[in-house]
Amino acid sequence: MKIERVKGTRDFLPEEMAKRRWVFERIREVFERYNFHEVLTPTFEYTELFRLRSGEEVVKQLYAFPDKGGRDISLRPDMTSSVARLFVNSFQTAPKPIKWYYMANMFRYEEPQSGRYREFWQAGVELIGSDRVEADAEVIALFVESYLATGLEDFTVNIGDRVLLDEFAKMLSVKDDVGLMRLIDKKDKMSREDFIGALREFGLSGEGVEKVLSLIEIKGLPGEVLPKAEELFTGENARAEITRLYELVDLLDAYGVSKWIRIDLGIARGFDYYTSVVFEAIAPNDLGIGSVGGGGRYDNLIEVFGGKPTPATGFAIGIERLIPILEWKGLIPEPKLRPDVHVVPIGEEVKKAAVEVASALRRARVRADIELTGRQLRKALDHAGKLGVPYVILIGSKDLAEGRVTIRDMESGEQRVVEKEKVVEEILKLLGASV
Amino acid sequence: MKIERVKGTRDFLPEEMAKRRWVFERIREVFERYNFHEVLTPTFEYTELFRLRSGEEVVKQLYAFPDKGGRDISLRPDMTSSVARLFVNSFQTAPKPIKWYYMANMFRYEEPQSGRYREFWQAGVELIGSDRVEADAEVIALFVESYLATGLEDFTVNIGDRVLLDEFAKMLSVKDDVGLMRLIDKKDKMSREDFIGALREFGLSGEGVEKVLSLIEIKGLPGEVLPKAEELFTGENARAEITRLYELVDLLDAYGVSKWIRIDLGIARGFDYYTSVVFEAIAPNDLGIGSVGGGGRYDNLIEVFGGKPTPATGFAIGIERLIPILEWKGLIPEPKLRPDVHVVPIGEEVKKAAVEVASALRRARVRADIELTGRQLRKALDHAGKLGVPYVILIGSKDLAEGRVTIRDMESGEQRVVEKEKVVEEILKLLGASV
Repeated sequence: MKIERVKGTRDFLPEEMAKRRWVFERIREVFERYNFHEVLTPTFEYTELFRLRSGEEVVKQLYAFPDKGGRDISLRPDMTSSVARLFVNSFQTAPKPIKWYYMANMFRYEEPQSGRYREFWQAGVELIGSDRVEADAEVIALFVESYLATGLEDFTVNIGDRVLLDEFAKMLSVKDDVGLMRLIDKKDKMSREDFIGALREFGLSGEGVEKVLSLIEIKGLPGEVLPKAEELFTGENARAEITRLYELVDLLDAYGVSKWIRIDLGIARGFDYYTSVVFEAIAPNDLGIGSVGGGGRYDNLIEVFGGKPTPATGFAIGIERLIPILEWKGLIPEPKLRPDVHVVPIGEEVKKAAVEVASALRRARVRADIELTGRQLRKALDHAGKLGVPYVILIGSKDLAEGRVTIRDMESGEQRVVEKEKVVEEILKLLGASV
Repeated sequence: MKIERVKGTRDFLPEEMAKRRWVFERIREVFERYNFHEVLTPTFEYTELFRLRSGEEVVKQLYAFPDKGGRDISLRPDMTSSVARLFVNSFQTAPKPIKWYYMANMFRYEEPQSGRYREFWQAGVELIGSDRVEADAEVIALFVESYLATGLEDFTVNIGDRVLLDEFAKMLSVKDDVGLMRLIDKKDKMSREDFIGALREFGLSGEGVEKVLSLIEIKGLPGEVLPKAEELFTGENARAEITRLYELVDLLDAYGVSKWIRIDLGIARGFDYYTSVVFEAIAPNDLGIGSVGGGGRYDNLIEVFGGKPTPATGFAIGIERLIPILEWKGLIPEPKLRPDVHVVPIGEEVKKAAVEVASALRRARVRADIELTGRQLRKALDHAGKLGVPYVILIGSKDLAEGRVTIRDMESGEQRVVEKEKVVEEILKLLGASV
């Protein structure tokens, strides 16, 4: 009986793992430079946590199950809920702001499609305890710099605003504001005609439709489109929020990341818990991959989880969205998977000597392998050749009796007999700076 | 409504995460020097995989649940099954041996107790495709060196053998050989009297009990106890296996790890799939922690999973067992969680300048933070003081008008006005090599 892996999941093989690690480490380095610190929460939580956050809609997409104690638990679909729960449990009185990051796997039960898996990884941050625009700027600047750290340059971070969308729904006297946001969120997935049709079907008048079309036009460089927002919105709340957006853009300029910043008031970011600024990163690609990450301010979530009202803002980068784009652009260096040296004993009686040589090399930090399947000389050389090993050390009993071993340069085929005691030194010399 | 985390799970806070990362990286470095490569499989598999491996007994301890497609899936309780499944799926024709490592979380539904959690992490390797003693030696040497890499020196790796235990059960005409092994495995958890009682209850005669007591005496330095094994075992199979143990010990000597090697024929290692050498690491401690990792040869598992018969050997290190011991011995360096510099704008009008300074520092790879909650000077200094930040940069509007900022040494309280353009240079000088 042959068992396959579960549908919608993947195995990561050595080359891909090495590339993923490279990406995680680039991002981690920036996170830490911004003084964020890593946390990790359990893979599963009480389902109630996720239900409180986003209602039954989200529960449908959870891997939810009763554990053996009859408790209703779920694999986490995101990290923000767990981190907010952790904050409520133990950090309410800690000095603010709290700056946490995570690199972890999430689970969502949805039909597998390009760039979407049932188990997927995110690298993200949460900044808890500041309601100020400086906190939004810090998080959005870090968001930009995280992509830059992976070598990606061709991308934009599009900023929308939930306060403005709420005010907009009020202006149109729309009761189902969430429904309207969801519709606006989908605008790029349909033609203009279909979008207009959907708006009418949603119940908007001709004037309402016109207004929505004006709203989604507020998209582009901040200096060009924020004045348009000022024209569209007249209420006090909205005006204050636009002033905040001006401040945000101004601070992002000081961070040196303006080049990547766009305003797009048509962005809602599905999740219901966002309360003000929302943003997402788009990197043009031929792979059918949309947003490669996103975030926003969520000032109510901690209260929903039973904490004292505490403002917060954060983002998550979708690793399975980002990596294919980095690969497609050739930005991830080829990992080195081959050993530097392969040690081959010629005959059973020199096995111990082969181990001694391999161990000495390893102690000198050389990545060394040793023949472990009893291959004879020719097959062992073939094997090392296939793996692309640059140097093979041959241990023969006659040489060894004289205290010597042979180094074979696999590219040139040249062989050189050296003293066993000096083989580490010789190999280090040959490898030069490449170890 | 306040939500707690699920019983038996933990949150890892920044300090602990940093320490864990340090441990993982030390171990990773050795794994890679031995030319093992990282793989990662999905968090869940079809439950059948784990049932095939170890029967219903193990299924009881699984987090098993039907997914929404009605498939019976389980969170992985170990990685060996998944790695063997991956091998069967895609690597049967790849060049041998395959040398894979993993660092991942596992799940087991058992009552939480000291050092045992429902979600726990392991770092392990699997070496697939060699039945030779060289492969066992490679894996056991790496096992020893992994602990050494974390700074641990006071530990032993105790080697047992399932072939000998099987032969032993035959010698005693015991039918329930697995039952006998389980009993022998528990010997260290009871008094000698209770152990003898349990053996009698199991159905052994006086002579049988004597033999078991001789067997578990075969424990200590290989050179001293292997001759005793030769006396106890007379069958051909057993003799061949003892010869193999001599060879193994001889190779481990060539690896330079003899100092940590002991023989203990009373070790069975619970899992049913081991077929020859088994081993576990014990590090003396006052924390009530037993084995900190273990492994062995499993030559039948791949066949059980529908693959061609393929020999394999490997180990797993229990991270939640190891880390408390390392902590108790003070072997994990204190992680640096504070920023090197904290930038404080004095007044709203200099916020942008503060961001510029923080950004310039971060571009120079300095871990810099910036006041994000609008604290005034005194509170901001208090805050930085509590965090242990060595330097604070104060941005005042008067100084700034003259192109200058203030660096405050938080230890001495000394303040120095420097040109804004030179602040990065100054800070780098102050931090010296400590960045």
